Amino acid sequence: MRTIIGPGLPNVPWEDRPAGCHEAVWRYSKNPIIVRDAIPSANSIFNSAVVPFKNGFAGVFRCDDRSRRMQLHSGFSTDGIHWTLENERIRFQCDDPEIGRFDVGYDPRVVRLDDRYYVSWCNMYHGYTIGMAYTDDFKIYHQLENAFVPFNRNGVLFPRKIGGKYAMLNRPSDAAHTPFGDIFYSESPDLIHWGCHRHVMAPTVGWQSTKIGAGPVPIETREGWLLFYHGVLTSCNGFVYSMGGALLDLEQPWKVIRRTVPYLLSPQTLYECVGDVPNVVFPCASLQDADTGRIAVYYGAADTVLGLAFTRVDEVLEFLRHNSKPWD
Amino acid sequence: MRTIIGPGLPNVPWEDRPAGCHEAVWRYSKNPIIVRDAIPSANSIFNSAVVPFKNGFAGVFRCDDRSRRMQLHSGFSTDGIHWTLENERIRFQCDDPEIGRFDVGYDPRVVRLDDRYYVSWCNMYHGYTIGMAYTDDFKIYHQLENAFVPFNRNGVLFPRKIGGKYAMLNRPSDAAHTPFGDIFYSESPDLIHWGCHRHVMAPTVGWQSTKIGAGPVPIETREGWLLFYHGVLTSCNGFVYSMGGALLDLEQPWKVIRRTVPYLLSPQTLYECVGDVPNVVFPCASLQDADTGRIAVYYGAADTVLGLAFTRVDEVLEFLRHNSKPWD
Amino acid sequence: MRTIIGPGLPNVPWEDRPAGCHEAVWRYSKNPIIVRDAIPSANSIFNSAVVPFKNGFAGVFRCDDRSRRMQLHSGFSTDGIHWTLENERIRFQCDDPEIGRFDVGYDPRVVRLDDRYYVSWCNMYHGYTIGMAYTDDFKIYHQLENAFVPFNRNGVLFPRKIGGKYAMLNRPSDAAHTPFGDIFYSESPDLIHWGCHRHVMAPTVGWQSTKIGAGPVPIETREGWLLFYHGVLTSCNGFVYSMGGALLDLEQPWKVIRRTVPYLLSPQTLYECVGDVPNVVFPCASLQDADTGRIAVYYGAADTVLGLAFTRVDEVLEFLRHNSKPWD
Amino acid sequence: MRTIIGPGLPNVPWEDRPAGCHEAVWRYSKNPIIVRDAIPSANSIFNSAVVPFKNGFAGVFRCDDRSRRMQLHSGFSTDGIHWTLENERIRFQCDDPEIGRFDVGYDPRVVRLDDRYYVSWCNMYHGYTIGMAYTDDFKIYHQLENAFVPFNRNGVLFPRKIGGKYAMLNRPSDAAHTPFGDIFYSESPDLIHWGCHRHVMAPTVGWQSTKIGAGPVPIETREGWLLFYHGVLTSCNGFVYSMGGALLDLEQPWKVIRRTVPYLLSPQTLYECVGDVPNVVFPCASLQDADTGRIAVYYGAADTVLGLAFTRVDEVLEFLRHNSKPWD
Amino acid sequence: MRTIIGPGLPNVPWEDRPAGCHEAVWRYSKNPIIVRDAIPSANSIFNSAVVPFKNGFAGVFRCDDRSRRMQLHSGFSTDGIHWTLENERIRFQCDDPEIGRFDVGYDPRVVRLDDRYYVSWCNMYHGYTIGMAYTDDFKIYHQLENAFVPFNRNGVLFPRKIGGKYAMLNRPSDAAHTPFGDIFYSESPDLIHWGCHRHVMAPTVGWQSTKIGAGPVPIETREGWLLFYHGVLTSCNGFVYSMGGALLDLEQPWKVIRRTVPYLLSPQTLYECVGDVPNVVFPCASLQDADTGRIAVYYGAADTVLGLAFTRVDEVLEFLRHNSKPWD
Amino acid sequence: MRTIIGPGLPNVPWEDRPAGCHEAVWRYSKNPIIVRDAIPSANSIFNSAVVPFKNGFAGVFRCDDRSRRMQLHSGFSTDGIHWTLENERIRFQCDDPEIGRFDVGYDPRVVRLDDRYYVSWCNMYHGYTIGMAYTDDFKIYHQLENAFVPFNRNGVLFPRKIGGKYAMLNRPSDAAHTPFGDIFYSESPDLIHWGCHRHVMAPTVGWQSTKIGAGPVPIETREGWLLFYHGVLTSCNGFVYSMGGALLDLEQPWKVIRRTVPYLLSPQTLYECVGDVPNVVFPCASLQDADTGRIAVYYGAADTVLGLAFTRVDEVLEFLRHNSKPWD
Repeated sequence: MRTIIGPGLPNVPWEDRPAGCHEAVWRYSKNPIIVRDAIPSANSIFNSAVVPFKNGFAGVFRCDDRSRRMQLHSGFSTDGIHWTLENERIRFQCDDPEIGRFDVGYDPRVVRLDDRYYVSWCNMYHGYTIGMAYTDDFKIYHQLENAFVPFNRNGVLFPRKIGGKYAMLNRPSDAAHTPFGDIFYSESPDLIHWGCHRHVMAPTVGWQSTKIGAGPVPIETREGWLLFYHGVLTSCNGFVYSMGGALLDLEQPWKVIRRTVPYLLSPQTLYECVGDVPNVVFPCASLQDADTGRIAVYYGAADTVLGLAFTRVDEVLEFLRHNSKPWD
Repeated sequence: MRTIIGPGLPNVPWEDRPAGCHEAVWRYSKNPIIVRDAIPSANSIFNSAVVPFKNGFAGVFRCDDRSRRMQLHSGFSTDGIHWTLENERIRFQCDDPEIGRFDVGYDPRVVRLDDRYYVSWCNMYHGYTIGMAYTDDFKIYHQLENAFVPFNRNGVLFPRKIGGKYAMLNRPSDAAHTPFGDIFYSESPDLIHWGCHRHVMAPTVGWQSTKIGAGPVPIETREGWLLFYHGVLTSCNGFVYSMGGALLDLEQPWKVIRRTVPYLLSPQTLYECVGDVPNVVFPCASLQDADTGRIAVYYGAADTVLGLAFTRVDEVLEFLRHNSKPWD
Repeated sequence: MRTIIGPGLPNVPWEDRPAGCHEAVWRYSKNPIIVRDAIPSANSIFNSAVVPFKNGFAGVFRCDDRSRRMQLHSGFSTDGIHWTLENERIRFQCDDPEIGRFDVGYDPRVVRLDDRYYVSWCNMYHGYTIGMAYTDDFKIYHQLENAFVPFNRNGVLFPRKIGGKYAMLNRPSDAAHTPFGDIFYSESPDLIHWGCHRHVMAPTVGWQSTKIGAGPVPIETREGWLLFYHGVLTSCNGFVYSMGGALLDLEQPWKVIRRTVPYLLSPQTLYECVGDVPNVVFPCASLQDADTGRIAVYYGAADTVLGLAFTRVDEVLEFLRHNSKPWD
Repeated sequence: MRTIIGPGLPNVPWEDRPAGCHEAVWRYSKNPIIVRDAIPSANSIFNSAVVPFKNGFAGVFRCDDRSRRMQLHSGFSTDGIHWTLENERIRFQCDDPEIGRFDVGYDPRVVRLDDRYYVSWCNMYHGYTIGMAYTDDFKIYHQLENAFVPFNRNGVLFPRKIGGKYAMLNRPSDAAHTPFGDIFYSESPDLIHWGCHRHVMAPTVGWQSTKIGAGPVPIETREGWLLFYHGVLTSCNGFVYSMGGALLDLEQPWKVIRRTVPYLLSPQTLYECVGDVPNVVFPCASLQDADTGRIAVYYGAADTVLGLAFTRVDEVLEFLRHNSKPWD
Repeated sequence: MRTIIGPGLPNVPWEDRPAGCHEAVWRYSKNPIIVRDAIPSANSIFNSAVVPFKNGFAGVFRCDDRSRRMQLHSGFSTDGIHWTLENERIRFQCDDPEIGRFDVGYDPRVVRLDDRYYVSWCNMYHGYTIGMAYTDDFKIYHQLENAFVPFNRNGVLFPRKIGGKYAMLNRPSDAAHTPFGDIFYSESPDLIHWGCHRHVMAPTVGWQSTKIGAGPVPIETREGWLLFYHGVLTSCNGFVYSMGGALLDLEQPWKVIRRTVPYLLSPQTLYECVGDVPNVVFPCASLQDADTGRIAVYYGAADTVLGLAFTRVDEVLEFLRHNSKPWD
Repeated sequence: MRTIIGPGLPNVPWEDRPAGCHEAVWRYSKNPIIVRDAIPSANSIFNSAVVPFKNGFAGVFRCDDRSRRMQLHSGFSTDGIHWTLENERIRFQCDDPEIGRFDVGYDPRVVRLDDRYYVSWCNMYHGYTIGMAYTDDFKIYHQLENAFVPFNRNGVLFPRKIGGKYAMLNRPSDAAHTPFGDIFYSESPDLIHWGCHRHVMAPTVGWQSTKIGAGPVPIETREGWLLFYHGVLTSCNGFVYSMGGALLDLEQPWKVIRRTVPYLLSPQTLYECVGDVPNVVFPCASLQDADTGRIAVYYGAADTVLGLAFTRVDEVLEFLRHNSKPWD
């Protein structure tokens, strides 16, 4: 029986674990896969979201331009590794100019849902909040209402309705470089109105002692939703962002079954430690194949470039079994 | 034609403007109407909400106990001035213990809506947010879902649906003594799920330069919704809370027609300047009479006692006409 | 059987509970007993310590001078209410100029121990720490080593050895207006070297949510050590200091048997709410009579004047039984 | 020989030291002399500057309006105690709209110099700085260039040229409620360009440990310039503003001859301790009579009302001799 | 017609734009040109100023020593790339010990003016402010009065009088690592007294959202003064310093004609990202040739080493035309 | 006569100063000697303590695990360069569970004293404080009482009694990333109770302007105790940790004879500048040979790996003679 509930994706980008490495998650040997100036206007390209699309892949990429404005760009790829990004940023279609006139976009997530691709990202509306849009072709994007009043970040939709309602992880924040942050779960009948907010998990200790936030769209497995998330530690020289994993209850995803006490990946290479924001590993998307259990995680490195890391679903679940405390 | 849209309330508490006073809002001469220890357990009784009820009045009162825990109590009155408060705090009935197990309650508002009395207050759920409940008798209170993820305060329901949806003013906040804060407007089809968030107004200068928050339930007038609100100034010895007024569009209440540049009431008496939190005037409720235009505003003073102030609707609207800048 | 273990003190200052008052602790009707300028050089006279001495009373008083320097003065009284203070500040005799050359003194406590009077206070030595001295006559004071490295405040000696060692409550602090603070217990074989540090209690919620510190010398009762202590709440206009009580195990005083959830006394009168530091009730000393159970607590008010409050030992213990949670 | 160098002013407001008072500076028994709402638009009237004018007195008053905007108003008096204030705020004439378009004004000082009255105040120009203007009649005010780039406050002109140049005390600040601040001395050939900046004095300890700032225009005496100034202490509930005195060298006023270690006046009355900013005594002006040595100091109280205090020049100089350390 | 108004400087250091590079400013391929320990006492050599001198070049260099004291050293070069620095720091000659006794020097600028070389730098005088000196030979330096009272940094003189007065850009600051900062323009008749302060530009968004400061001496062109300046962004791991450009009106330089919305150069190489202060590009000087339009910009990298970057005047002006918004 | 008082240690790890290097302390050419993942569970291995043990060496190592928990591990080596670390962390034996139940351990020091090996480290007990234990074999560790109440760090024992008492350097701190810190000296008769606290030295300027803390166990020389210590500078991107040296009086070690004004070693290599905490050099141990005067210093680099640096005792003392100011 396949662990991942979902389609087989035989062309998931992949590279075997290097010899001598015993870790549950390992880096792609040719990282970074996208450099900071892959398009002419870019200062940096990093926290980005990709999905299978037609015979290949498409995605929404965070490209800060050389004014250091945070913007979103579409991109396409045949193998998930080599990407062609649009030079022009995404301009959302929005009926209501009160919502549409803001044009900040960062840290996107993309999910296939109801035969469309939904994008959620950190938008601006008198404070940062979760912007929402859908696209059919990664060319035209229809913007919806923002999901919450400010301040909120790291909004991540589930890939199907749960209990008859749309579901989103999100992270209440404040107006600045928030020094705290828990993951919440919210529900919606229509992707417009949100309620029934549930607390999912809080920062604990060590690498995840300051704040946490959901990463890629959760992966449905027979044991629960597999969530990769980032955690932040406050060193005496600022924040350090690492990646961990959690397993959430399939029907009540605000209930945490397991959660990694150690991190799965932390900033240790030069491209993760040196850049516009030193010491950042920030996952925003994954591709997975139900048949082989292969998972490829896309993560921003040092807020500057895009990296790729690999694991297998059974190994992550095994790691979770041995490196968690039950959570209730 | 009567300015206030709504029922006549001939027994609104009242006292004429004192001789020599030329201000648009004046204090009750026997303030405070409720002292800090009016019930045995109380340390202080202040930011509280009242409504007409049967032949008299009922309300929900913030009574911090002598542990300095913030709690809500029911109260009843025949004249709106002399109140009998329940010694026991309100315990909300809640089907979902995930929500119901938190028991913090402060800064309540009460509104009659759909033939029920709805209470919104600052509740706790992994951070302060807007709690929601209804009651028919001010004895049994049925708690609903919290309206938002944290952090939010000063949630104030409108007394009728607008554009077919329930409507609430609210104030995104942070985890501490928030040094910022704008008023937002959110809509709901069911009082559970909230969306279509619109920015209403921001702090400006002077007495309202740090943060602002909605006060009593807005009063429907032929010119717009009359909103009393509090504004905060940061002096070098902390916050000063004063009261102003605004006029919001009847059908699109996130559009501000007028807004007082001067305050209407600021802490100047000893019971407003000295107490657990010096220099606080904090309005939470009003009673009004469509026939006479009389308005009585209930406000917390120094986070310690409850005060009463009076005005007339036409005078406030006149004041707004001469002391506002058009707002768009 | 008498509750208090210790000598009868028939002339403890006293006034019965006023009619209509139901509180466990009540104020002296002629408060403050010492005004801010009772001696010519004084700006304020407040957090101070008194003990029975000869046929009357003596004490060490915090008198901030008109330069706002914090200093200690001796004082004498026949009735515990009317005090004569020395115009000249205490100058400690100290063999080691490295210790003796600092002359800051504030928030003293005095205890009779080994037939001497020991003074502990908040002293300066490259940071605030606990100064120690003894006197036989309240005229000549012999200074000992400071008990701890900085930063420490609110050092309070027990009136007898416990487990064969001297014992002191103390409060680790930081270099400024510390926004945190727990009470610890430390032991010494010689009043010079201190060790075996034990955690006693932490801030909790409400009036004692920011920091706490021991007040008067603990009173030995058959049920445990009765400790009055101060707790601090952070309002949006600064700190509020109130007084609570706790019962500590007789032989292992770091074990808390009971602890008031509500405060016993909080700043509510004008002389407690208005002054150099608004909203402060800060107990530093008590007198008690084993025969009658009468207790008189001396407390600083608004960091400006000295107040007096009364209770009875059995009433306080009864209050603790009904207003505590067991603490372990 | 008269101590004060300057004209006799027989009608200086005056009241003898009350019996039993031994302090060098004493309050007027009918304080405050101007209440917070002496003109209709005023929220508070406090830190203000007065000078002899024609047969009586004129002045520039800080009147924060009921929007809590800081503004300056002219006022006139025949006895220095009873004042008639203009309802309309001062509108400075300014040739350069780049300078003139800002209309913030607070904490003014006024000095007679070159047969004109010069006003210096805390003005706004992309940050607080020292505004400059002159008037002949307290009706029309001609605004000059601001003296400094931001951030600067408490600019006080000397009443004559020193060493052939105009001279001004001033206080470099920051963009907020500055938690530091020293007094500097700057020179100008033309009241437009300023240079040769000299450090005068820094905060020390006690009541003047956080920041200090010059108060009234310095009084020329045979022993030096007599300067009243304010000092600020940071208590755990915010800032406390008191008044001290200093004697500056006549020809090199950046050299401090003496400086009070104790304060001369600190907030102790209800009108100084309770108001918009509790615990503030803030002197901005004085009147003095060379023949009698009488000095009347005008000071803002609690940032709410205007108070008056008295002293005699020889008593202040005597106080300085006994309560200073020589300063170099 | 030549764009740059000024002398031809045929030996400006130069290297053509590398193939494949399309940016307006490009780095020298052999950066850094001065390493951190180029003289024995140095911990780091970075933000420095150079000018043509005799047949070659001279300059004033910031060399923090191994005590991390900030100091200035003279240096000489024949080609502008290979430099010989004096081992001994500059000791300014100053007639007035009140000014001369401070010996902090950092972030210098040098300009030829009135046939002398004027140095302005960040000096100490009871707070950081702009120090001023001149030299004829880069051996003996005559110190003038400091230009302003503290707190001020990044003082940059124009290379000629404007409107008959000396002119200086400067940046009001505070006492610490200032989290804000606008560029101002001030005038002086004598290089001693400064006035007529005008606001030039404020931080905006992106890479220049926290603070900005003038860089090299402005270059006079037929279109306006070409100013390179630094801008700072606050990431969650501290400040990031980048370089942009602006065009100021020739006769009223406080009027901004154009200003780059994107940066021209940001920290992206290892020597700019890793060092004593990670992520710093800080320009302090330029050399330019009117005949060829070549410009060489000297900039500190990571507060550790000195880098060199190139551009051409017409390309920068072209870049400004296409990447600015008109500014007024 | 040998400068170092103590045993010859012929096998001290060693490498001669590289050609062209003139510094008093030089790095080992094969640094780092321990990489971040030398044991499977480790995220980083850095601030660690080593001593001669049997025929080789043993030590206590700070190994933060992949949860970023701070833990201590034993390690053994035959040459002091190649180390074998225990995979299992040290678990201290402690009779009193009140003390023993905390398991945080970081920044250890080890000293041979009374024929045992004593470990002091930064422990947790309701705040960071100095933990104490001894071992005979680096397998079983017996935990003693914590030396102080919180908050304290960098506790370093002297290798013999002084004046008949045990002696320890220590650094009072606060509850967070302390932005201040002086070195103190405390005495104990029994390693349990501590007193007679003496101030040793404070931060000064430059690289040691924010805080300082003792490093390795002081080395006894004929001129005094040679102490290597760390100092911290606050740049605008956080803290920078460097190493300096001091000479303390042999019998009164709180008296500083000399102290380096420049640093001896600061973060300049990639492994010191890039890692979990950029820009950290943090010495915790040294090995020395009385016969040759060779000293090897072990230091943590970037809170990530362990480095080794060399010097000779006479060179350090010579450096101190020429680069200190006498300290008293």
